[in-house]
Amino acid sequence: MVLTQELRVATRGDGEVIDITDDVGAEVAKSAVQDGIVTLFVPGSTAGLTTIEYESGAVHDLQEMFERIASARLAYRHNLRWGDGNGHAHVRAALLGASLTVPFSRKRLLLGTWQQIVMVDFDNRPRERRVVVQIMGDGPAPREGGAA
Amino acid sequence: MVLTQELRVATRGDGEVIDITDDVGAEVAKSAVQDGIVTLFVPGSTAGLTTIEYESGAVHDLQEMFERIASARLAYRHNLRWGDGNGHAHVRAALLGASLTVPFSRKRLLLGTWQQIVMVDFDNRPRERRVVVQIMGDGPAPREGGAA
Amino acid sequence: MVLTQELRVATRGDGEVIDITDDVGAEVAKSAVQDGIVTLFVPGSTAGLTTIEYESGAVHDLQEMFERIASARLAYRHNLRWGDGNGHAHVRAALLGASLTVPFSRKRLLLGTWQQIVMVDFDNRPRERRVVVQIMGDGPAPREGGAA
Repeated sequence: MVLTQELRVATRGDGEVIDITDDVGAEVAKSAVQDGIVTLFVPGSTAGLTTIEYESGAVHDLQEMFERIASARLAYRHNLRWGDGNGHAHVRAALLGASLTVPFSRKRLLLGTWQQIVMVDFDNRPRERRVVVQIMGDGPAPREGGAA
Repeated sequence: MVLTQELRVATRGDGEVIDITDDVGAEVAKSAVQDGIVTLFVPGSTAGLTTIEYESGAVHDLQEMFERIASARLAYRHNLRWGDGNGHAHVRAALLGASLTVPFSRKRLLLGTWQQIVMVDFDNRPRERRVVVQIMGDGPAPREGGAA
Repeated sequence: MVLTQELRVATRGDGEVIDITDDVGAEVAKSAVQDGIVTLFVPGSTAGLTTIEYESGAVHDLQEMFERIASARLAYRHNLRWGDGNGHAHVRAALLGASLTVPFSRKRLLLGTWQQIVMVDFDNRPRERRVVVQIMGDGPAPREGGAA
């Protein structure tokens, strides 16, 4: 059983980290699937997905790390060729990854207590993002002995 | 067909890299699924999953890389707010990722010869970790012509 | 429904980035699965998978980022022990990840317009690589009322 949905997320870009946990959980809750995986995927090459403890300190620290390893102030060949100034966003997104798979059981995402699912928009401008939410797994077990 | 299991792994923290390949392979072996994926997921925001050639040199090199890009000696806002001193662990875990999907065929994980599945515990203290092991795929093909 | 296929990819190594989008799309197209996921996996510990806008600028920028965070010129313990000089490749591959999951719907990969699926071969020599392409999902819906 496969269900393909899509979230719409308005972002400010510039590394904004957006908590999409509740939206993902709601898609699982309203599906008929009890146990399985939710595959999350960002179409686009300047955003990524991961999990983090969604509090402003850890979010800031993650952004600082990306600035250390792929600073927006470095020279990027992508910028020389295309002039859109978001070369750092492409590199960061490729490293973080566009895909995330989260298992669930009895309709509950198997996350840790302080662990949230986040989308990071690395682009250098606000975007209207789509996130694919595809749910796959087993439906409810047939009730035993059940004549109507 | 979906099976949700859990491994328990005692770690020393501080970037310890633990080979869980055999445990994952054993869960696949004892399931009824022949071909499919095993979705691995660490509930928690200070550990991650990947594959590596599990020998002490490469393991050390990986730990050094994380110290270069998210040193434990840097200042982290997470530490200022929460005082638990593991801000670097949150950043490293978000970058490495909490999820890993490994395909298998005829109950054999499709890993390379020198490639192991590992959990990296970045936290700054020993932990008792859970790793979700969810197996999804096709059961054995029905035997042809088989009357009972 | 699960189908396990394999691509063969000849690489030059040294961080070469190879676009495998069309090959993956072709496997999905010729399968009987309409909606589901394709799990990609590189057996081996010196290559990884991700998505990127596959143009020479962004590809170069990604390679430069890996040289910044895990330079081939650093000392690696893996090299001291095994003498094959590809310690940086092991570290980079473990960070990028050997696995990638891409959802598809009506046989179309749900990628962004400028987003390609790539394999990065970090090894320090040409390789003949395999990439596992495992397709899982729903077959075509049975036609309603359909007598032949």
